[in-house]
Amino acid sequence: MKKIPVIEIFGPTIQGEGMVIGQKTMFVRTAGCDYSCSWCDSAFTWNGSAKDEIKQMTAAEILDDLIELGGDRFNHVTISGGNPALIRGLDELIILLREQGFRTALETQGSRYQDWFLLIDDLTLSPKPPSSGMKTNFTVLDDIMKRLIDGGRKDNVSLKVVVFNEEDFDYAKNVHLRYPNISFYLQPGNDQVNEQNDHLLRNQLLEKLEWLIELTVLSKEMNDARVLPQLHALVWGNKRGV
Amino acid sequence: MKKIPVIEIFGPTIQGEGMVIGQKTMFVRTAGCDYSCSWCDSAFTWNGSAKDEIKQMTAAEILDDLIELGGDRFNHVTISGGNPALIRGLDELIILLREQGFRTALETQGSRYQDWFLLIDDLTLSPKPPSSGMKTNFTVLDDIMKRLIDGGRKDNVSLKVVVFNEEDFDYAKNVHLRYPNISFYLQPGNDQVNEQNDHLLRNQLLEKLEWLIELTVLSKEMNDARVLPQLHALVWGNKRGV
Ligand code: SF4
Ligand code: SF4
Repeated sequence: MKKIPVIEIFGPTIQGEGMVIGQKTMFVRTAGCDYSCSWCDSAFTWNGSAKDEIKQMTAAEILDDLIELGGDRFNHVTISGGNPALIRGLDELIILLREQGFRTALETQGSRYQDWFLLIDDLTLSPKPPSSGMKTNFTVLDDIMKRLIDGGRKDNVSLKVVVFNEEDFDYAKNVHLRYPNISFYLQPGNDQVNEQNDHLLRNQLLEKLEWLIELTVLSKEMNDARVLPQLHALVWGNKRGV
Repeated sequence: MKKIPVIEIFGPTIQGEGMVIGQKTMFVRTAGCDYSCSWCDSAFTWNGSAKDEIKQMTAAEILDDLIELGGDRFNHVTISGGNPALIRGLDELIILLREQGFRTALETQGSRYQDWFLLIDDLTLSPKPPSSGMKTNFTVLDDIMKRLIDGGRKDNVSLKVVVFNEEDFDYAKNVHLRYPNISFYLQPGNDQVNEQNDHLLRNQLLEKLEWLIELTVLSKEMNDARVLPQLHALVWGNKRGV
């Protein structure tokens, strides 16, 4: 069995954002990213700060850990990163989870395709807006989207764009218009990833949410969009592993 | 055209809860309810306190108001109450909205069936738990569910139970087990519907959310459930018309 670099496994908890917001789930977070977004809220997965926590694990070992932690109290597993799409060996984990009857979710920025995308129940492509400092390769994203649609996965895929400012909102519009038939989510950016006061953080996050709702409400291009916060940040602040 | 008793029309805003949480939408709120839940957060629709605001409107008049308010900035209309399922004449509104290309959502407690349920894109049945003081007629709810499933509407329907205490949570489990193939949402109850301090309210609502997440995480019967707050209460407090 291939090895997968894992930085944390936790849950059960709820999915805090995106297309299955609120869903009870376990999390497997893989290490490594091909991006370095300025506001990355999981920079510990790629910037070396948590490199001693990375374990090289087989799919079977990950499943063992999930069951040890979650017992019979979960049906759904979310794989996040970093960018899990860097990891070819994830196919073994996804197949194993499906064999055990678990549904799976995965989020990636859409910089790389993997055949096992076709096996994910809830796949979120989250291309990064200008404020991240990254540049989207739309040739790659078009190709990923085409393969998913050709593979009959339209209803299993969503797009999500994090928005920090109006330039990001324009970028989000372009992404939505480019793939009009794919479920589209907007999420206000958390520019306070080091804020330790949960009450302050809540109020700031809810103000950003209100701001993004107002932009969306005014924009006729966004009539089909959904605007959602990060529930885990509202409930638990910037803590890891919840 | 039949007359529909309307208490408010507002938007565009976002749907704050349930199966299409975050969706940009307009709201039409009808007057009248066959229940009187102890903690009803829209008691003004049925307790007489806003009876001077009730207008008897035709479907065409409602559409005119929606377009006057929302212009070309909406594709989705949510009908809420009270209990809109009391109003036979809603079929004309729903047919008209569909003809105009709008998607529709509607929430009802599930005490009465209407044939036009089969035309709703996002239908939420929200049976009321013991803390409401109401008693669910499961014969009626079973019948509604059967008609919806026989009508091929499984993917357009969800169940949502508001939970104030552990007894409500047990009730929610029973509802979920009774209709295991229907998407199931849990929502923490807002027992502070008169709290005017938004910061206090936020913290109380998020504490209730955390409490409900913990119950859900511990319960293997709730592995497929989704736990969601009321976003509008978090952002705008107990204000009406947002
Ligand atoms: S793509 Fe995601 S994990 Fe990678 S740097 Fe950007 S935000 Fe962080
Ligand atoms: S069913 Fe809904 S509108 Fe009617 S009393 Fe209960 S909470 Fe209020």
